[in-house]
This record gives sequence, structure tokens and C-alpha cells, in this order.
Amino acid sequence: MRTIDVQASSHDYSIHIGSGLRLALKSYISMDYSKILIMTDENVANIYLDDVLGQFSEKEILKVIIPAGESSKSIEIFYSTHTKAIEFGLDRSSLIIALGGGVVGDLAGFIASTYMRGIDYIQMPTTILAHDSSVGGKVAINHELGKNLIGSFYPPKLVLYDIDTLHTLPTREIRSGYAEIIKEAMLAKQSNLNEILSTTISDIPNEKLMQDLELGIKIKAAIVEEDEKERGTRKHLNLGHTLGHAIEAVLGYGKITHGEAVGIGLLFAVYVSEKYFSKKILFSQLLSWLKKNHYPLNIVNSLTPTALVDKMKTDKKNVHNKIHMVLLEAIGQPTVHSFEDNKILDYIQSFFDMVKEEMMN
Amino acid sequence: MRTIDVQASSHDYSIHIGSGLRLALKSYISMDYSKILIMTDENVANIYLDDVLGQFSEKEILKVIIPAGESSKSIEIFYSTHTKAIEFGLDRSSLIIALGGGVVGDLAGFIASTYMRGIDYIQMPTTILAHDSSVGGKVAINHELGKNLIGSFYPPKLVLYDIDTLHTLPTREIRSGYAEIIKEAMLAKQSNLNEILSTTISDIPNEKLMQDLELGIKIKAAIVEEDEKERGTRKHLNLGHTLGHAIEAVLGYGKITHGEAVGIGLLFAVYVSEKYFSKKILFSQLLSWLKKNHYPLNIVNSLTPTALVDKMKTDKKNVHNKIHMVLLEAIGQPTVHSFEDNKILDYIQSFFDMVKEEMMN
Ligand SMILES: NC(=O)c1ccc[n+]([C@@H]2O[C@H](COP(=O)([O-])OP(=O)(O)OC[C@H]3O[C@@H](n4cnc5c(N)ncnc54)[C@H](O)[C@@H]3O)[C@@H](O)[C@H]2O)c1
Ligand SMILES: NC(=O)c1ccc[n+]([C@@H]2O[C@H](COP(=O)([O-])OP(=O)(O)OC[C@H]3O[C@@H](n4cnc5c(N)ncnc54)[C@H](O)[C@@H]3O)[C@@H](O)[C@H]2O)c1
Ligand SMILES: [Zn+2]
Ligand SMILES: [Zn+2]
Repeated sequence: MRTIDVQASSHDYSIHIGSGLRLALKSYISMDYSKILIMTDENVANIYLDDVLGQFSEKEILKVIIPAGESSKSIEIFYSTHTKAIEFGLDRSSLIIALGGGVVGDLAGFIASTYMRGIDYIQMPTTILAHDSSVGGKVAINHELGKNLIGSFYPPKLVLYDIDTLHTLPTREIRSGYAEIIKEAMLAKQSNLNEILSTTISDIPNEKLMQDLELGIKIKAAIVEEDEKERGTRKHLNLGHTLGHAIEAVLGYGKITHGEAVGIGLLFAVYVSEKYFSKKILFSQLLSWLKKNHYPLNIVNSLTPTALVDKMKTDKKNVHNKIHMVLLEAIGQPTVHSFEDNKILDYIQSFFDMVKEEMMN
Repeated sequence: MRTIDVQASSHDYSIHIGSGLRLALKSYISMDYSKILIMTDENVANIYLDDVLGQFSEKEILKVIIPAGESSKSIEIFYSTHTKAIEFGLDRSSLIIALGGGVVGDLAGFIASTYMRGIDYIQMPTTILAHDSSVGGKVAINHELGKNLIGSFYPPKLVLYDIDTLHTLPTREIRSGYAEIIKEAMLAKQSNLNEILSTTISDIPNEKLMQDLELGIKIKAAIVEEDEKERGTRKHLNLGHTLGHAIEAVLGYGKITHGEAVGIGLLFAVYVSEKYFSKKILFSQLLSWLKKNHYPLNIVNSLTPTALVDKMKTDKKNVHNKIHMVLLEAIGQPTVHSFEDNKILDYIQSFFDMVKEEMMN
């Protein structure tokens, strides 16, 4: 098992990464909670819920199973879960457990942050992507007009990451999570990045997986410790997300995974950085890693650059309505730049041309 | 003008109390906000909204006017206000202003705490009760199963209290607010309490009003600075609220005001304290002040003690399902006690008998 400690402004918490942790949850709960609500989605419930429930009596724990997928991060499920929690008798000294991917984690965390003005919660991530979402305290639901528009900063009490659960993940979900690890490594140093770029994600031994997750989490944790509320350096974690989010929004959520879109977004960020700073940083290595691991680069054929720029303009990170992008002056040297719409449009067009050409080789 | 500074865990903020402040709002806004949303209710909008709007251009400020009354603290208005804010283009560097009583303040504050994970807001209280709700950062909406069940701790950036607005308040709203000032004084010291008990609320000069508000706010601010998240001493602010909340809930909200119910609750808390500690504390002085100021003590004739006890058991402050009450060992010496249902029932019955008898004198 590996443990990383994070200092949040309200309290410190530990992230444990290891094998079989879901079966030992109870031994990690130090406080005497009056009642527990565990939230998970249908897919995860089928495989892992009983492993956790088995440790508690029916009277002390309430299970809430939501449909799998992004559309569960809704105001309706937010409210109906509050109803269930009240009816079950959850009070201020109760606990919420999020067993699942980022969808379950974001939703359950936001419910915990608002239930009777905030109660404790534990993240039990079951996707690779959730190494990112379970650390740092960003929790949210979606508004029909945009993703994650209603939420808070509310760190968990504990993150218990059972890597055994990751072996039932579909390949596209593995791909999704690894894009965020690559991103984190790009914000750190060349040796970290080389480490990750050496991974072929279709068949990772537990030991390597644990090592990559630990690396990603350490990098993310250091950033959120420095800037919990995203006023400065935490914005760097949006590397790859300006185009990534726009691709997701234009395609409609669920068409490709978040991390698959971010993978393409990272390549775009590197492309723009190399142009902007007139030097080679990483483009060809990253491109070949994305190809080797079957990221859906072909999707550029069905995307219209102007539609992407329109979406970028409504992104909430765009202060005063300019398009912001995180660039890399070098590995580990991110900076935020703002661009006029037209400039971004040019970049996207030439980037798409380049990717199309590369895909034919 | 009087100014009180409050230290919250996230930031410090000032409370200014004075005459004509609503007309000078703009000069108190120090940051360069991208856009502003001002929320108020119908009653307040009719009298004071233009005074504030006059300071801004139509393009920079969006007004959201809600129906007056407790039922506006709903998930529907919460969500529809988010919609309006998104459509108007509020971003992370925008501001929300709450112009109104505790309903507007609690709702607008909760929206600010969750809009894009939290943006700045300013409280402009226009009721006496809101001296309490605008300080300390408790924000919330109601769930159909109970009051304030969905919320956060999220302090404002500034409180601007224009006491001129208080002169249009209906008498019952003045009564409502003064009960909380009495409560605060009971938590402080005898001289503070004497000061407030000397007030006849039907006709208060501005100078005395300002002094009483300042006193109440200072006492409350000191408590929340010590215990922002209500883990210990902040619970003392629930003095009078165990019975107060139960009365409101049994009668149905709006029948009598919150503070009118709290006034009776305070008398009950003193009654139980005197029995429990076997000494005189305040009962007769408080009773005559409540009578002099026409608090609706007669309501005890239409209340059933068992129904009140049932409501108390579902109150969210009741950890592990016991009924908790704040008692006074003496003025300025609050302590929290838990009671069995039956004991509370006895107390209520004998208290009601005593009040009924007193009302006949
Ligand atoms: N809070 C943050 O800082 C942050 C950061 C990044 C992403 N996010 C959010 O995370 C969400 C995406 O997270 P995600 O990619 O984990 O999505 P997800 O939670 O929808 O999980 C992806 C799919 O995998 C299934 N699944 C989960 N665990 C499984 C397992 N062990 N075996 C088999 N199937 C499993 C799920 O049922 C789902 O169908 C988005 O809503 C995004 O906004 C939040
Ligand atoms: N957050 C906290 O710490 C806290 C503390 C106490 C109470 N509260 C909340 O505060 C709310 C009650 O606040 P309230 O008593 O101010 O109620 P309110 O906001 O409903 O105002 C009472 C009435 O007075 C009217 N009004 C307001 N200002 C006026 C003015 N200047 N002139 C004429 N009419 C005016 C309103 O339209 C309303 O009809 C409750 O929802 C309660 O839960 C919160
Ligand atoms: Zn991401
Ligand atoms: Zn009150």
C-alpha cells in the first residue's frame, strides 16, 4: 500500500492506494458516525457494492444506486438523495461514501458538502480518472447549460483507492484516466513524463499501475495544496482541457470519454506551445504514445473548428470572455495565455490538418 | 456609521451599520467584478431596489426578484437563479448582492456558495432579524422535509446595513428581530442584557437601534469567530430555538414570525434553566419585556405539547436522536443539555400552565 497525505485548508486527509482496500474499509473509519450513506452507480454496484456493504449492518448504512453516466450529476438526483438521506435519519455526525468513478465522486461529494451545511465523506475511486477527481475537493453537479456549474470546494476525509477494482474497467475508461496522468506528468518533470510515456495501457501490472497513480496523485496534490481554490497555479491542471472540453461539448457527452478528449487536447496544447515558443517540446513523442494506445485521433475528421471555438467562449474559466489556454514553455513550466477567437481558430485548423496527415502515415 | 470586523477562516470581512448606506453601495465595492446579480424580494424591491440599481448600468447588473416569504428558499428558485446567472454571463469573477431579510440573504448566499464553486457576495440586510442571518456565513435553502437542510458555511465579503430601511418594517418583523438580539445579550453579560431589555421596540430612535444592532452583531461575531462550523460554542446561538423551531413547524411557517417563536422559546429556556439549576435567572424580567412588546404568548393556548416534542425529535441539531437544549447557568453562561422526550414534555406542560396563568394577570 502507498499513502499520500494532503493538507487542505479545512483539514488534512490521507490517500491510500493498494490492493483489497474495499474489503477493509471499516478499519479505516476512525470516527463513530451515527449513520452512513453509500452512493454508487449500477455498474459498480453489480461488481463491488456487496464487498463494502458486508462490513456494516443494514440499520447503519443506506445504499443509493444511481444510473451510470454523466447525466446522473443532475439537480434531480442531488435533491432526491437529500430526501433519502433525511428519511434514513442522516444527521450532522453521519458519513457519505462515494464508491465509483468521477460521476459518483463529484455528486456524492457535493451532496456531502451541502447536507445540513456539510458532513464528512470518503472517496473510494474505482476508475483511473477518479485518481484526479477524488483528490483536491472539487465537487459539483451539472446544469443543463453547462458541466460542473453548481458545486463547491469540499475535500474528503479520506481517499481509499482499491486498485483491484480497476481491472474490470473497459479499455476506453483506462485510456480516459491515463490522459490525466500524462497531463500531471507534463506539469512536473521530464523524468516523470518519460516514466508514464513508457506505459502501454492495455496490459498494466498492478505494481506499475500503483506507481503511475501515485505519481499522478502526488503531482496533483502538490498543486492543490498550493492553490486549493483555483486562483492561480491550480489553473494549470486545465492543461489540455480548453480543446478537450469543447470536443466533449460539441460531440455530446458520452461520445468519447473525457480523458480521450483531453488526450487530444493535450496534443493541441503542445502544438500551440511549440508554435508560440518556437521550440520543440513533446509533440512527436506524445503523438506516438496516443497512437500506440488507440486514442481516437480520427475524431478530428468529424469536428468543425468554428463550432469548437464557439463552445470555448462559454467555458466558465474564461474570465471576461477571452479564451484562456494553458501552454508549456517546457515540461514542468506551464503558463496561462489568453487568445482572440481568430487566433485559436487558426491554431485548431492547422493542428487538425497536421493530425489528419499524421493519421495517414 | 459603526464598523465591526469579522475574521472568518477563509477571509476577513467588515460589517458597516449606518444611515443611507444603500445609496453608497458602489463606493464600498473594491474589486473589479465582471458582472453583478442582485437578488431581492417583492416587498423590498418596491421600496429600495431602485436606490441600489441607480448606481449601476443595465449591462452590468441583473436583478432577480423573488416572492416574499420563506417558501422562496426552495430548490426551484435556487436552480432557476443559477439559470438566469449563467444566461446573463456571470463568471467566477462576478458578484451577488443580497438586498433583503434573512430569506433573501440565506438563498442568495447559498447560490453564491455554489455558483461555479463559489463567487463573492455582499449582504445588504433590510430586516432586524437579518443582523443575525447576515453575519456568520450560514447560508441555506429549505427541503420539503425541513428548514435549512441544504446549505453551506460561506461568509460574505461585506455586510452593508442601512438602518434607514428598517423604518418600513411591519411591527411583527421588528419583534422578530429583537428576539435574536435579546438572545445574544443573554449569551453575553448582565449589563448588555439590561441595555436591551430597556428598549421598547414600537418606537426606537435610530441611534438606539444602531447601538442595539451593533451590540447583537458584536456578540454573534465573537461566537462565530471562535467556532465557525458549529462544533461547539456556536451551538449556544440555538438558545430558545429548540422550542422556537418546534412552534414554527407545528403552526406552519408564517403563522407567527421566527423571532416571535424564538421569544417564547427563550422564555422556555430560562424556565427550564431555573428549574434545572434551582435558581432565579431572568424569568420574570423577560416575561414582562415580552408582554410589554406584545410577543404572542397567547399562542400557547393553541399548541399541543406532544406535537411539539415530536417536532423536536426531527430537528437536525439532535445528534443521535436525543433532544438538545441550550440552558443558562447564569447570564453569559450557556451549556448544552440533552433530555429524554418525557422530561421535555413535562417541562413544556408546566411552562404552558405558568404562561397561561401569567397571561390572565
Ligand atoms: N472533481 C474533479 O476534480 C474532477 C476531475 C476530473 C473529472 N471530474 C469528473 O469526473 C467525471 C468522470 O469520471 P469517470 O471518468 O470516472 O466517469 P464515471 O464515473 O462515469 O465512470 C466511467 C464508467 O466506468 C464505470 N465504472 C466505474 N468503475 C468501474 C469499475 N471498477 N469496473 C467497471 N466499470 C466501472 C462507470 O459505471 C461508468 O460507466 C466527470 O463528471 C468529470 O466532470 C471531476
Ligand atoms: N443564516 C443564519 O444564520 C440565519 C439566522 C437566523 C435566521 N435565518 C433565516 O432568516 C429567515 C428569516 O429572515 P427575516 O425574518 O428577515 O425574513 P424575511 O426575509 O422573509 O423578511 C420578513 C418580511 O419583511 C419584509 N421586508 C424585508 N425588509 C423590509 C423592509 N426594510 N421594509 C418592509 N418590509 C421588509 C420581507 O419582504 C418579508 O415579507 C429564515 O429563513 C431563517 O431561516 C438565518
Ligand atoms: Zn479532466
Ligand atoms: Zn433564529
